Amino acid sequence: MNSLVEPNARAPISREPLPASVKGYIIGSRPNLKVPVRDISLTNGEVISLYDTSGPYTDPNARTDVRCGLENLRGPWIEARADTETYVGRSPSSIDDGSRNAEHIAQLRISAAALQRVPRRALSGANVSQMHYARRGIITAEMEYVALRENGRREWMAEYLADEERAKRVQGRSMGASIPKIITPEFVRDEVARGRAIIPANINHPEVEPMAIGRNFRVKINANIGNSAVTSSIEEEVEKLVWAIRWGADNVMDLSTGRDIHTTRDWIIRNSPVPIGTVPIYQALEKVGGVAEALTWEIYRDTLIEQAEQGVDYFTIHAGVRKAFIALTAKRMTGIVSRGGSIMAKWCMAHRTESFLYTHFEDICDIMKQYDVSFSLGDGLRPGCGADANDEAQFAELRTLGELTQLAWKHDVQTMIEGPGHVPMHLIQSNMDEQLRHCHEAPFYTLGPLTIDIAPGYDHIASAIGAAMIGWAGTAMLCYVTPKEHLGLPDRNDVKQGIIAYRIAAHAADIAKGHPGARAHDDALSKARFEFRWEDQFNLGLDPETARAFHDETLPKDASKSAHFCSMCGPKFCSMKITQEVRQFAADAASDASDAPVEMV
Amino acid sequence: MNSLVEPNARAPISREPLPASVKGYIIGSRPNLKVPVRDISLTNGEVISLYDTSGPYTDPNARTDVRCGLENLRGPWIEARADTETYVGRSPSSIDDGSRNAEHIAQLRISAAALQRVPRRALSGANVSQMHYARRGIITAEMEYVALRENGRREWMAEYLADEERAKRVQGRSMGASIPKIITPEFVRDEVARGRAIIPANINHPEVEPMAIGRNFRVKINANIGNSAVTSSIEEEVEKLVWAIRWGADNVMDLSTGRDIHTTRDWIIRNSPVPIGTVPIYQALEKVGGVAEALTWEIYRDTLIEQAEQGVDYFTIHAGVRKAFIALTAKRMTGIVSRGGSIMAKWCMAHRTESFLYTHFEDICDIMKQYDVSFSLGDGLRPGCGADANDEAQFAELRTLGELTQLAWKHDVQTMIEGPGHVPMHLIQSNMDEQLRHCHEAPFYTLGPLTIDIAPGYDHIASAIGAAMIGWAGTAMLCYVTPKEHLGLPDRNDVKQGIIAYRIAAHAADIAKGHPGARAHDDALSKARFEFRWEDQFNLGLDPETARAFHDETLPKDASKSAHFCSMCGPKFCSMKITQEVRQFAADAASDASDAPVEMV
Repeated sequence: MNSLVEPNARAPISREPLPASVKGYIIGSRPNLKVPVRDISLTNGEVISLYDTSGPYTDPNARTDVRCGLENLRGPWIEARADTETYVGRSPSSIDDGSRNAEHIAQLRISAAALQRVPRRALSGANVSQMHYARRGIITAEMEYVALRENGRREWMAEYLADEERAKRVQGRSMGASIPKIITPEFVRDEVARGRAIIPANINHPEVEPMAIGRNFRVKINANIGNSAVTSSIEEEVEKLVWAIRWGADNVMDLSTGRDIHTTRDWIIRNSPVPIGTVPIYQALEKVGGVAEALTWEIYRDTLIEQAEQGVDYFTIHAGVRKAFIALTAKRMTGIVSRGGSIMAKWCMAHRTESFLYTHFEDICDIMKQYDVSFSLGDGLRPGCGADANDEAQFAELRTLGELTQLAWKHDVQTMIEGPGHVPMHLIQSNMDEQLRHCHEAPFYTLGPLTIDIAPGYDHIASAIGAAMIGWAGTAMLCYVTPKEHLGLPDRNDVKQGIIAYRIAAHAADIAKGHPGARAHDDALSKARFEFRWEDQFNLGLDPETARAFHDETLPKDASKSAHFCSMCGPKFCSMKITQEVRQFAADAASDASDAPVEMV
Repeated sequence: MNSLVEPNARAPISREPLPASVKGYIIGSRPNLKVPVRDISLTNGEVISLYDTSGPYTDPNARTDVRCGLENLRGPWIEARADTETYVGRSPSSIDDGSRNAEHIAQLRISAAALQRVPRRALSGANVSQMHYARRGIITAEMEYVALRENGRREWMAEYLADEERAKRVQGRSMGASIPKIITPEFVRDEVARGRAIIPANINHPEVEPMAIGRNFRVKINANIGNSAVTSSIEEEVEKLVWAIRWGADNVMDLSTGRDIHTTRDWIIRNSPVPIGTVPIYQALEKVGGVAEALTWEIYRDTLIEQAEQGVDYFTIHAGVRKAFIALTAKRMTGIVSRGGSIMAKWCMAHRTESFLYTHFEDICDIMKQYDVSFSLGDGLRPGCGADANDEAQFAELRTLGELTQLAWKHDVQTMIEGPGHVPMHLIQSNMDEQLRHCHEAPFYTLGPLTIDIAPGYDHIASAIGAAMIGWAGTAMLCYVTPKEHLGLPDRNDVKQGIIAYRIAAHAADIAKGHPGARAHDDALSKARFEFRWEDQFNLGLDPETARAFHDETLPKDASKSAHFCSMCGPKFCSMKITQEVRQFAADAASDASDAPVEMV
């Protein structure tokens, strides 16, 4: 696979580590089990180590070539389990890329030639899902990896978490989560076994750095990317992924539509260290010329296998959009706003019969467990505005998703549940409550929710509010919203803005829930701020480059980076400086009290 | 005053109304009582009317000249009360502008010559605060103005609020607020009388368009502005104000420091239709050369009178920073971060005596009630990071602010309470609870709070999350945070970004609390979105220009503005379009049910 690796990545791929950061690895108990962390060197000699989603791209020692893909990290683990086989996969068809032009298809195939892996599937009758192993008491390498990754390097945190009064005063309120102080591999196994967490890791995506989605882990975020309308290069498409994980996307969904989507998916998956999700109905619809009524179970099934062989880690499947629920949306302010939901509603209406996703659900489970593809049960009837929130259509579908969760679990297929969308603040908690009640604690994966409808151009902010709240309440993964939501396609900067907004939301949730690593990160930055360590303040922030640029607009000189004041207040007014004098005063007051009356000093 | 009005405003002042918007006025019962609204004409013929903070600047029929100030709106009401007198005010001194250069001062004076009003104060022994009138059962013009303004034009909302199922399902959760369906002048009077709302309206700021800050009214936002470091023109300084109110700032605080601050304040107040707040200790400190220890009650008192005569509507006064509390901050992660708080702490430490703001509090009340300046009791010990949230220093000060509130109310002086700062999500509710408990429902006015510390460059988002939550919980006004917070001075775009983020937070709070106008505004935009009325979607948003620009990046053609699809999904995938087919299906299904079995159709 890597025989064609070239010495350097091509120009457009972002490879520069973030400032003052070095890729470190926590070594596990098995060969090749090296969990990446981002070690940030501070100016005072401390090293702060953070969760790192950016993959090998930010490791200058890692050789990457987008035309050959990433290292086969999990291959040895998967092979060692001896429950899979390689096989001659489904034959690629020109329809997979939505094009009739043979020359174009030939060119596409060449671009992805070195990325082709021989597909792997479970031995006949076997089930290779992480849930299946977990339920049999097996701790996989993936589970150990997740445990080490969630813990991070705990050593540096100790100083920040030592103050007992503070620890007690600001300790989180878990809202029903049970986050242990130390995540053990056994804890991960148990969470996966009971369905409260998933590890999306298709056996055909061995490049993935395993991660967990579950309410007792760090809250995760997802970024959506899609192919460009005009034919673009492999470097351009992969850079979208690399850019997203650089800023902290834990998962990426490839929502490509139109032409070239099979090959684009090859490009992305083979180069992705994070789980990739898709909505297979989008491609199935392309295959029938965009006519929803023409969809069939057979075409859909073929698409699932096509994508499972490529290595997609989870499928959004809108199997809860039942025919009977469609009429429930008729009086809504904005009807059905999910693409997948509206496609299936149209199909049900045209055929006047139940959704094939619902009737074939166990057939789908049979495919999922052969590859360990996880369900992301889509909320096709999610509200498209605050006025439609928490209505009967939404909750009828949610209850159906709960039934389907139990069906999936019967097959030991990992499952998470998608959630809204648009929900005013006061209705957010009940969304979480209903999800927990009906879906048996399967991880919740919400889009926002947007708390208001009047902020086009700023919906990353309107939704970050809802995302933070529902993350605190127990949602395991937050799907980002960019500033372009409702208006247009996000560009590179929009993607970054959406990701940063969602990292804020996810981190706010972690802080509120009492995640120990989250608290220590905040405290390290606050201490740097108080001590006027400007460089450290920038580098510990979510976006060091922007923080530095903003600072330098007002005080560009290098000397200002160590100045004991800043541009907001200037040297005379610096409250931080005055505070340092308070400490002397408090110390004096304490010694006064023991020595003599204050007045006599 | 207006004899020098020139026919047109000078170039840099923003005068263009927002797109499709016309300034309307709701006419009250008294002469000159015309409450402004922004009437937005939609493409379907509807007119949606919104709360309007932008003052005469967005009314093309209003003549404005920054060198002469705005119309003397409230003058006739104040004079009609016959409880005030004009008098020869305090003589301006060169120290007021912090400069020793006589020529510079002379130039400054000339710039503000036409802006000078003869100061007015209460007749000897009188009290001219809105609270004092309210407690005597008097409904002032200002109270009626506020009632009309809070209601807005209710007619257009009826259509959006008519659906009973929806109204019940999404109705707000008031969290202890009591927002009536219709705000009457008597309701406003009662809220002011019991101290649960304030109407900041110095009798020397007759240009102000009255507004209320209280939990039973629309949640308000404040934007901070300050003078430029380099000497700038009156147009430039006034434009900062005009820009802030254009995007929705309900209040503006002038936090200028350094030179020229007296004259800058003349420029701003005379041209401001919104209440102006200041932190008088900043100017007092300038007068003593920046040496906190050199501050005296006499210098501070003189500064209060100086600013009260100019027309400042509320003063932030850090009277709760008592000497005994200073030592409580010694073990904090980030000590004292309030400028005013740290100045007073330094003074108390240097003199080893109680704060003169605390010991002279009733003397301050005597000044406030002569001009109707409101207290904004500053939280000088607010936490500067999440780790310091809700500590004993913060709450000891809050309890003191509660005592001082009762003292202020003894004098019928309007009072609000400032709050943090930096508070993780799970500690926000207790801030509100403690404030309500100790401060007897006096309006809470919070800075953010920031929910996390690791987002330098994006603290407008990190804090909008906290602001929305505490706004829902009952905070009456939210002080904005810009993206430059902790890093540098905000520029024009930063101010806009901060204001929009805070309008999102305030609106999310209004929606959650169940403010009727808020819900209808969201629904009007959602309906426009569903009906592909792109122009209306832009124009009903918080920032029409940005929404339009984002849309046009992908689909710039004019025809796309009426296209029944958008760039996100394209024509085939349009879920909104499919939904329209659902309605027909539901209608058919209903008629099927009454006519014949489905299979037989």
